[in-house]
Amino acid sequence: MTSGLVLYGYWRSSAAYRVRIALNLKGLGYQNRPVHLVKDGGEQHASAYAAMNPQQLIPSLRDGDRTLTQSLAIIEYLEELHPEPPLLPVDARGRAQVRAMAQLVACDVHPLGNLRVLQYLESELGADEAQRGAWSRHWIATGFAALEAILADNAATGGFCHGDTPGMADACLIPQVYNARRWKLPLDDYPTIRRIDAACSELQAFRMAAPEAQPDAPAVQG
Amino acid sequence: MTSGLVLYGYWRSSAAYRVRIALNLKGLGYQNRPVHLVKDGGEQHASAYAAMNPQQLIPSLRDGDRTLTQSLAIIEYLEELHPEPPLLPVDARGRAQVRAMAQLVACDVHPLGNLRVLQYLESELGADEAQRGAWSRHWIATGFAALEAILADNAATGGFCHGDTPGMADACLIPQVYNARRWKLPLDDYPTIRRIDAACSELQAFRMAAPEAQPDAPAVQG
Repeated sequence: MTSGLVLYGYWRSSAAYRVRIALNLKGLGYQNRPVHLVKDGGEQHASAYAAMNPQQLIPSLRDGDRTLTQSLAIIEYLEELHPEPPLLPVDARGRAQVRAMAQLVACDVHPLGNLRVLQYLESELGADEAQRGAWSRHWIATGFAALEAILADNAATGGFCHGDTPGMADACLIPQVYNARRWKLPLDDYPTIRRIDAACSELQAFRMAAPEAQPDAPAVQG
Repeated sequence: MTSGLVLYGYWRSSAAYRVRIALNLKGLGYQNRPVHLVKDGGEQHASAYAAMNPQQLIPSLRDGDRTLTQSLAIIEYLEELHPEPPLLPVDARGRAQVRAMAQLVACDVHPLGNLRVLQYLESELGADEAQRGAWSRHWIATGFAALEAILADNAATGGFCHGDTPGMADACLIPQVYNARRWKLPLDDYPTIRRIDAACSELQAFRMAAPEAQPDAPAVQG
């Protein structure tokens, strides 16, 4: 389905990856406009992009004359306008649970490992590569330990984070698993997370959204 | 209105402060159960609390036999079960805009200045008090510059972040303004944020939610 949606993203951005998964799960086509986060000091800081997204972060989603920002707000917007298939359960408690798992990743894990934070740690606090790696692994491990406990303890956990269809929590979790692997965090302690990651990796919506499947992914990835 | 809700919070926690504002705006009574984040290594790490909230973070909201976590998920839950007065606009684009502003604070500003992060900066990276202060001010200033631009540029901005009634974005912004003052960040560059903060400070819902109005606030505040 062609939707007229335009996604400003970056192949390896966790937040853009979430939105790609949501768009694919809903079967919404979109134009992909890569924003290179490193080249020329970061294309997200260019004036045309900054005018559209004053945070100078990605992703942004254009829908007609309107720019939407913040990955979870974008996913909620897609859910409201294109309710099928749903990415949130029908009951308020289930919805709260899925949103909480999504926010565990999107508020308490991912922002700490973001590029701009790692750049600050290096330039202002002199953190070397090993310290930046330890920092990133620490916050992912802290978040994953909690999420594993939540998933393992909840009767609503199914083949995916909530029940047997993928939703908003899975769209946040899988990009964070990708980051965990990138930072070489062992995943042995998180069997439920590994199981859900394996289930998602079988689905076309997740495969098409993966960093290495994006047009701006380099041929050799660092 | 007595609701049977129990809020586990801390007087100075930004995330608990958000939920208190939302509960007050909706006129929902609740029991306040303070969790001391520093005493005895942090009461949020005690086994009874950790069993309820595996992230060992506050707030948690008990509603009957159910524990809800993550402040924005809690506010969405309250909005679904107690829709009046609404904390989100009726239109999807307005809702996306309010959620994006809320998440700008809740994902990209607040988690970076959280207690556990400052503790890590000190213990693992040797950041002294001045460096931790600079870190906190940097991320608040970065977020506020973007939010000020968003608010100043949007015709939907009114007496509050969206229109002339307070909502989810205001519930996130005001606790962050409190943090900004605590870190002595000058607010001169953010006139719209200051105007909205002043408007909120006139409202009983915000006054009752303020840190200094909480039962666990110390008589002399550091």
